[in-house]
Amino acid sequence: MSLTPDLDALRRRLDQDRPTNIGFPGSVDFDYGELLPFFGYLLNNVGDPFVDCVGRAHTKHFEREVVEFFADLFRAPPDDRWGYVTSGGTDGNEFGLHLARSLHPDGLVYFSAAAHYSVPKLVDRLRMPAIAVRSTAAGEMDYDDLRIAVGQHRHRPAIVVATVGTTMTEAVDDVAAVRRVLHDLAVRESYVHADAALTGVPLALLPSDRRPRFDLADGADSIAVSGHKFVGSPFPCGVALTRRSLRSRVGRRVDYIGSVDATIGGSRSGHAPLVLWYAVHTHGLDGLRQRADRSRELAEYAVSRLAGIGVPAWRHPHAFTVVLPTPPTVVTDRWALASAGGVSHLICMPGVSRGQVDAFVTDLASAFTPS
Amino acid sequence: MSLTPDLDALRRRLDQDRPTNIGFPGSVDFDYGELLPFFGYLLNNVGDPFVDCVGRAHTKHFEREVVEFFADLFRAPPDDRWGYVTSGGTDGNEFGLHLARSLHPDGLVYFSAAAHYSVPKLVDRLRMPAIAVRSTAAGEMDYDDLRIAVGQHRHRPAIVVATVGTTMTEAVDDVAAVRRVLHDLAVRESYVHADAALTGVPLALLPSDRRPRFDLADGADSIAVSGHKFVGSPFPCGVALTRRSLRSRVGRRVDYIGSVDATIGGSRSGHAPLVLWYAVHTHGLDGLRQRADRSRELAEYAVSRLAGIGVPAWRHPHAFTVVLPTPPTVVTDRWALASAGGVSHLICMPGVSRGQVDAFVTDLASAFTPS
Repeated sequence: MSLTPDLDALRRRLDQDRPTNIGFPGSVDFDYGELLPFFGYLLNNVGDPFVDCVGRAHTKHFEREVVEFFADLFRAPPDDRWGYVTSGGTDGNEFGLHLARSLHPDGLVYFSAAAHYSVPKLVDRLRMPAIAVRSTAAGEMDYDDLRIAVGQHRHRPAIVVATVGTTMTEAVDDVAAVRRVLHDLAVRESYVHADAALTGVPLALLPSDRRPRFDLADGADSIAVSGHKFVGSPFPCGVALTRRSLRSRVGRRVDYIGSVDATIGGSRSGHAPLVLWYAVHTHGLDGLRQRADRSRELAEYAVSRLAGIGVPAWRHPHAFTVVLPTPPTVVTDRWALASAGGVSHLICMPGVSRGQVDAFVTDLASAFTPS
Repeated sequence: MSLTPDLDALRRRLDQDRPTNIGFPGSVDFDYGELLPFFGYLLNNVGDPFVDCVGRAHTKHFEREVVEFFADLFRAPPDDRWGYVTSGGTDGNEFGLHLARSLHPDGLVYFSAAAHYSVPKLVDRLRMPAIAVRSTAAGEMDYDDLRIAVGQHRHRPAIVVATVGTTMTEAVDDVAAVRRVLHDLAVRESYVHADAALTGVPLALLPSDRRPRFDLADGADSIAVSGHKFVGSPFPCGVALTRRSLRSRVGRRVDYIGSVDATIGGSRSGHAPLVLWYAVHTHGLDGLRQRADRSRELAEYAVSRLAGIGVPAWRHPHAFTVVLPTPPTVVTDRWALASAGGVSHLICMPGVSRGQVDAFVTDLASAFTPS
């Protein structure tokens, strides 16, 4: 039986859907053709990327370069940094929360109501007691509400998840403001994890005077970013980072693999580090920055085009995400937008074109015009 | 800067190491060339494979076929089955343990001392109290010790992890024997998860009279297998299976993705299901069975060759794994064996050749011969 017809049908569907797939934050401007031969090998980066394993079919030396690149980007201390390439944002958030729990077994977790759905899922899974604090209408954590919540539990370690790019509006929680709340309340033990899955990389590329405060130098103890969002990757992946001195309290040696197991997953893809390594080297910092700038320009263009047809769309100053009231079904059937609670968004990731935005606006305009 | 030299060096190293990489259980006889074009697309099977997501760049219809194939193999009830393609064995074991905990929040976990290192890691992560029971010298769970341990805690739900192919010796715990212990002790609430990462697929291909008792029809509530081990895949992946009626108590709806999130990871690779789909269709049941038979024959050949040079090697009747005393360093430096506690193994996965076994035996023989 030939499988070719099924595979051809899949390709046709993917090609056909791509132009209207503007609601989810995956860059589609990548070309990893040079890496294809490596899909002929099983590559397994099991365990700690900084400790080679007995099995030699891995890409840990590439992974270490990737970790260093992101550690620089998120300003981890040069002599006290550790991280690994994850299977995605959830993996990285689980790493951060698990590390926080290992350091503060009795900690209470605080996250905003606009946090990614993986955060409440993870605190349940890790059996960590947690409080959701309010978010503002624009999606940012309400620090006054955080102050009230933490104030009621000052005797317990506080573990705060800051969301750096919320799912629906790309709002950015201010890690320095979180730290100020914790400091004002004289909380003795605390930990801040930055879930920067969506927007950590493009924000880190901004000039320092316009860069929001979210990374390790701003007071985060760990940070997780996605690799398949801004950077671009065919499969979900990401990077988790922390200070080595924190992490060293978690790992355990496993003879069998000849490495230290401090990751969430155990066996890990060796292709994901290769893809990220290739991406950061081919783009370079300048190339990545230009991609981010183009996305922001396109998002601003989308806002003004939507305003032009009377749709009250808006975006945060640094965001690729354009928020609008959920369009009529005739539009959402055709365009793969993300929607929740009467609000939808499109997101101008690298690879989305002005033509796609124009086509969307045209479709939306005709949905509002009685035919 | 050209990246080609680094990539060429990686390929050379991989090609050079492949012949001596016989200690870890990854098949290397795969060819997914026909799937390479799909690495030009971001494919994300976020959430439940049986509920399509809003984003259309996924392979969930392929994933459903994969789940059905494995559900047949592991004899899940035709009208009560659910599963998904995981990022590997740890993901699948976490799914099983988390499901068990959701059903039995006060459950005590029992696993054997020979269980995979991910099991103690996971019970700690999930904050599940756990007891390790003894394993026999050959690596199988000691059911008498299980009886003693459970007997001391008959008032609590019992969650037993059966290992179907232990890491070091490929021993297989008997799920029916576990069930008998639980039944004899009249434990009121129980759950059995089969960690069949290593050897579930080849065992399921045996004729029914020689097939160990480990799957859903034998009393397991969930089962996890790896995809990158026997089946073969360039990156770690696997399949987790359970009864739909159990799983439905765990999932929660997420508007944002337009799907139900009942998986561990959230965003999930769309390529892993494609690879497994391709593998099971190209091999078919007969092809997979022939690969398993060839591996067992080669393992038996390795045992007899090793016996021929005076090395007391042995294997379980159905195993691909050949266990031997850890060889001198001159041999382990060259051959990537898995070693722990003075014992090593090689594992005759599909793709390992008689020539490799001969070369290993020759090297080992010369290490023992004074030169």
